[in-house]
Amino acid sequence: MTEIAIGIDIGGTNTAFGCIDSLGKILAEGSIPTQTRHSFGDYINDLVNEIKQSLNHTNKLIDIVGVGIGAPNGSYRTGTIENAANLRWRGTLPIAKLVNEKLAVPVKVTNDANAAALGERIFGGAQNMSDFMVITLGTGLGSGIVVNGDLLYGYEGFAGEVGHVIVRPGGRECACGRKGCLETYVSATGVKRTVYKLLAKHLGDSALRDIPFNDLNAKMVAEAAKQGDLVALETFKYTGKMLGEALANVASVTAPEAIFLFGGLAKAGNLLFDPVRKVMEDNLLFLYKDKIKLLPSQLGENAGILGAAALIWNDERIISKLKSA
Amino acid sequence: MTEIAIGIDIGGTNTAFGCIDSLGKILAEGSIPTQTRHSFGDYINDLVNEIKQSLNHTNKLIDIVGVGIGAPNGSYRTGTIENAANLRWRGTLPIAKLVNEKLAVPVKVTNDANAAALGERIFGGAQNMSDFMVITLGTGLGSGIVVNGDLLYGYEGFAGEVGHVIVRPGGRECACGRKGCLETYVSATGVKRTVYKLLAKHLGDSALRDIPFNDLNAKMVAEAAKQGDLVALETFKYTGKMLGEALANVASVTAPEAIFLFGGLAKAGNLLFDPVRKVMEDNLLFLYKDKIKLLPSQLGENAGILGAAALIWNDERIISKLKSA
Repeated sequence: MTEIAIGIDIGGTNTAFGCIDSLGKILAEGSIPTQTRHSFGDYINDLVNEIKQSLNHTNKLIDIVGVGIGAPNGSYRTGTIENAANLRWRGTLPIAKLVNEKLAVPVKVTNDANAAALGERIFGGAQNMSDFMVITLGTGLGSGIVVNGDLLYGYEGFAGEVGHVIVRPGGRECACGRKGCLETYVSATGVKRTVYKLLAKHLGDSALRDIPFNDLNAKMVAEAAKQGDLVALETFKYTGKMLGEALANVASVTAPEAIFLFGGLAKAGNLLFDPVRKVMEDNLLFLYKDKIKLLPSQLGENAGILGAAALIWNDERIISKLKSA
Repeated sequence: MTEIAIGIDIGGTNTAFGCIDSLGKILAEGSIPTQTRHSFGDYINDLVNEIKQSLNHTNKLIDIVGVGIGAPNGSYRTGTIENAANLRWRGTLPIAKLVNEKLAVPVKVTNDANAAALGERIFGGAQNMSDFMVITLGTGLGSGIVVNGDLLYGYEGFAGEVGHVIVRPGGRECACGRKGCLETYVSATGVKRTVYKLLAKHLGDSALRDIPFNDLNAKMVAEAAKQGDLVALETFKYTGKMLGEALANVASVTAPEAIFLFGGLAKAGNLLFDPVRKVMEDNLLFLYKDKIKLLPSQLGENAGILGAAALIWNDERIISKLKSA
């Protein structure tokens, strides 16, 4: 009998799943499109059928320990998805209940960034850490915070919205309806906005002057920076400064052992890490100086499904620790 | 046999202790001066002797479950006091070890604000809450954060320094050596600084113009505000705004069910609570709006020793919950 956890990673376009053992080995995997079905129930039916077929193909005796789901606005406390902006189904979606009805195993739900944090703890670079944070840098900025060895969920399961800490009161407009949120500066979109601000402010040449706003992406800015483009270099410096200041402040709240950067923007490497590290250290309270590691995520391509499966494996680890205590 | 926890509250001037049962009843209490002894070991000897005498006077069969200590810069992880600015003994003081050698029971250490938070959970207004925060307003601003039913200690036990979140980069000088920390605006000292800033800026009459900086205290400002003094009223409005903005940001990290205000400044009541509540709500991310209670602490006079004893009783509660699971 092989014990596995099923990890499901729900994105706006595709839903990926993997059947993953406690060491992170993927025994089966697959995906379905997320939004072709009118009814959420039909989508769940399709997903569970696909998972079952994929399990049959392994030709093994499988014991499903549980199902972990990483979903936009997924709440651990209620097992639901709440008004996710990038899904077609509105309101409260009782995903844990629906999946549990079909598979009869524990189902745990959380958002993508929380899943990434648990993935880092079980399969990635945070394997011996009980207090750390993962910052996911994509279109926005997400965060998953682990304290005392478990996720910081908060009262209704929606803690860890570091991307919506207001770092510049009255600053850039944010999709959340407020102004000056960290993710308006530090994210793929934030990088674009900074490029355009700098192009407006300065006169010097830049390869980025030939690219329309809607065509520009963070990878192009990183490429330009590596070619020595001054606007691109200044953009990363500014992005790093904003993130470094914010992380120093968050550290005063949660005192992490390490902070992991995850996602497309983190691939810019030292272009981003160097200014973040410097500005964070310059702004840390003396209690934390030279103590907080800033590291790239160690999860690779399959981060989404590994993180979702880690929701189950982390609980198993807590239970076995308690039983042995 | 009566089970008690000993709660010890170490202040710069006095060290208070109480022998407290699981319902918060104080069976014995006392205090000694904190800093008359040259050696830290002698101070601990005096303290333990005083506790033993006080226990003898109860004429009861006592079972000491443990000793909880609230101390400046007290670390839960190491059981030590680290470089406390207001104590005469420098360096690392192994207080848990020293007390354990004498009383042979578990000894837990944390800082005053963390102890206040556990006190609120066990004996105060947070008795059914697993995710909340206590802000202590004294000379500085301390914070104790409870998540998943236990204190957020952080990597080395020094999490929860909300008073040192930088809210105005380049702002007021802070005793920590940096600038713009929240406690330079929101604390008894912060209130004084705001009064003087406003007296410098405006021309209008104010009773506060007759008081030298070193004689002014937050209670006098509250009294003046109640008399309608415009500078005093504006001071509380500004203090509340700074705290409200900061709490809205911290909420994006920890998502608390409630925030309790504790300490001298909190006694100003609506003068402080009204602007904090309004500005916090105005600045909250939509996920948290109208969900976070802002409340006065429900711990009374004996908050210090109750909070320290709660370090032990909260662990007992976690253990019995785990055993029954």
